[in-house]
Amino acid sequence: MSEASAVRVIGLWPSPYVIRVLIALKLKGVEYQFVEEVVGKKSELLLKSNPVHKKIPVLLHHGKPICESLVIVQYIDEVWSSGAPAILPADPYTRAVHRFWAQFIDDKPAILPAQPYARAMERFWAQYVDDKIAPAFLVLRGLTDGDKDDAAAQVSNALQNLEEAFVKCSQGKHYFGGDNIGFLDLVLGSHLGWFKAVEKIAGIKILDEAKYPKITAWADRFCAHHAVKDVMPETDRLVEFSVNSAVKAKASN
Amino acid sequence: MSEASAVRVIGLWPSPYVIRVLIALKLKGVEYQFVEEVVGKKSELLLKSNPVHKKIPVLLHHGKPICESLVIVQYIDEVWSSGAPAILPADPYTRAVHRFWAQFIDDKPAILPAQPYARAMERFWAQYVDDKIAPAFLVLRGLTDGDKDDAAAQVSNALQNLEEAFVKCSQGKHYFGGDNIGFLDLVLGSHLGWFKAVEKIAGIKILDEAKYPKITAWADRFCAHHAVKDVMPETDRLVEFSVNSAVKAKASN
Repeated sequence: MSEASAVRVIGLWPSPYVIRVLIALKLKGVEYQFVEEVVGKKSELLLKSNPVHKKIPVLLHHGKPICESLVIVQYIDEVWSSGAPAILPADPYTRAVHRFWAQFIDDKPAILPAQPYARAMERFWAQYVDDKIAPAFLVLRGLTDGDKDDAAAQVSNALQNLEEAFVKCSQGKHYFGGDNIGFLDLVLGSHLGWFKAVEKIAGIKILDEAKYPKITAWADRFCAHHAVKDVMPETDRLVEFSVNSAVKAKASN
Repeated sequence: MSEASAVRVIGLWPSPYVIRVLIALKLKGVEYQFVEEVVGKKSELLLKSNPVHKKIPVLLHHGKPICESLVIVQYIDEVWSSGAPAILPADPYTRAVHRFWAQFIDDKPAILPAQPYARAMERFWAQYVDDKIAPAFLVLRGLTDGDKDDAAAQVSNALQNLEEAFVKCSQGKHYFGGDNIGFLDLVLGSHLGWFKAVEKIAGIKILDEAKYPKITAWADRFCAHHAVKDVMPETDRLVEFSVNSAVKAKASN
């Protein structure tokens, strides 16, 4: 198995849950093969790799599946870390192979912070982002039932909380993770393509610089980062994708 | 601040999310003070400590709040670990204090496994348990709307999946975590009191030895563990609590 095919990601390009996995791999400098699913169908590989949820993304690492994006990002952080002794496998030959590669990966940036309290804060807010923002966006895109004003208010309230969280987490630096992109940066940042797309679709302002100056500035920095800019989908492409999805959803009702 | 009051848990005794935190602290041999909330009210301390969700449990560690039970358990595992160098604080005096205490905590059992793939599996299944079992139990207890047969089927399907997961995670040993209670043991195990209570309330068999022999045997082992048995509430007390909750919920409608 070549190094490239050792890491595969099963996904769809517009999914924020997929995007965060791709950015994490890019941050670590890990080459991967992207296995694109077809919208509305589920491949045999996906069904076999994630029989419980049957959902993207799935990370295949030497054929072994890892599911759920927050779990995958933490896995990536732990496997491609700077010499965490725990990651060495039991088999001596495999250990030797790992040690050989380890010398090339000493500069892998950590995604989770080292300090337990900071880790807990990022895990807390990461779950919060996925609980509050993604479901509200589905309402605003017309894909799930719900009051659009309520959904917009929920996003607005979440951004207010995140504006405060940014001050605490970033400690005056560029990212939630400090000097580098961290766990919460990935989780919130992976939704940023949809922020702009949902603004166009729903005709509302979401990322308001006057209300959330820190998050707005952070969003610009995040999207300009070398590990992000090739992965983050363009707004118009997302809008087109969303309109098509809504049409298909209506047709199947 | 005394050692005991250095660690406080804000909670309610019947909550599985609280129970898992208490068991984790007991596993680590950490003394804690339990700050009991009053049902239906939220204390000033709770509102101040978890302003975002306003929910139990909250762990207060030297006054700093950590929220969300899965986040808390990982925090406990990382803080009271055997000499993880990353947990040392920057300030030299605080480092010295930490190193002093570290000599007494070298025998702390790890809750998350060391190997990243095993960690990913436990994180995956932990989220699965909380997503599938707790909401179904609320339906079966008559506290949220929903079809009781569907809820029972969802629990049954989850247990079937967990029976298979046990084989993979435990590798023929006593617990999901192997020889010792681990992350997934805590997360599923903390619901076990309610398994028996829901069986009585809904008049159905949930933990069927014939269908789930491994999980049933594991459940007995888990509940008999020294870190668990004093924390796990008695079935009748849970049933009484649930009946009272349902009465109150009806009265307020």
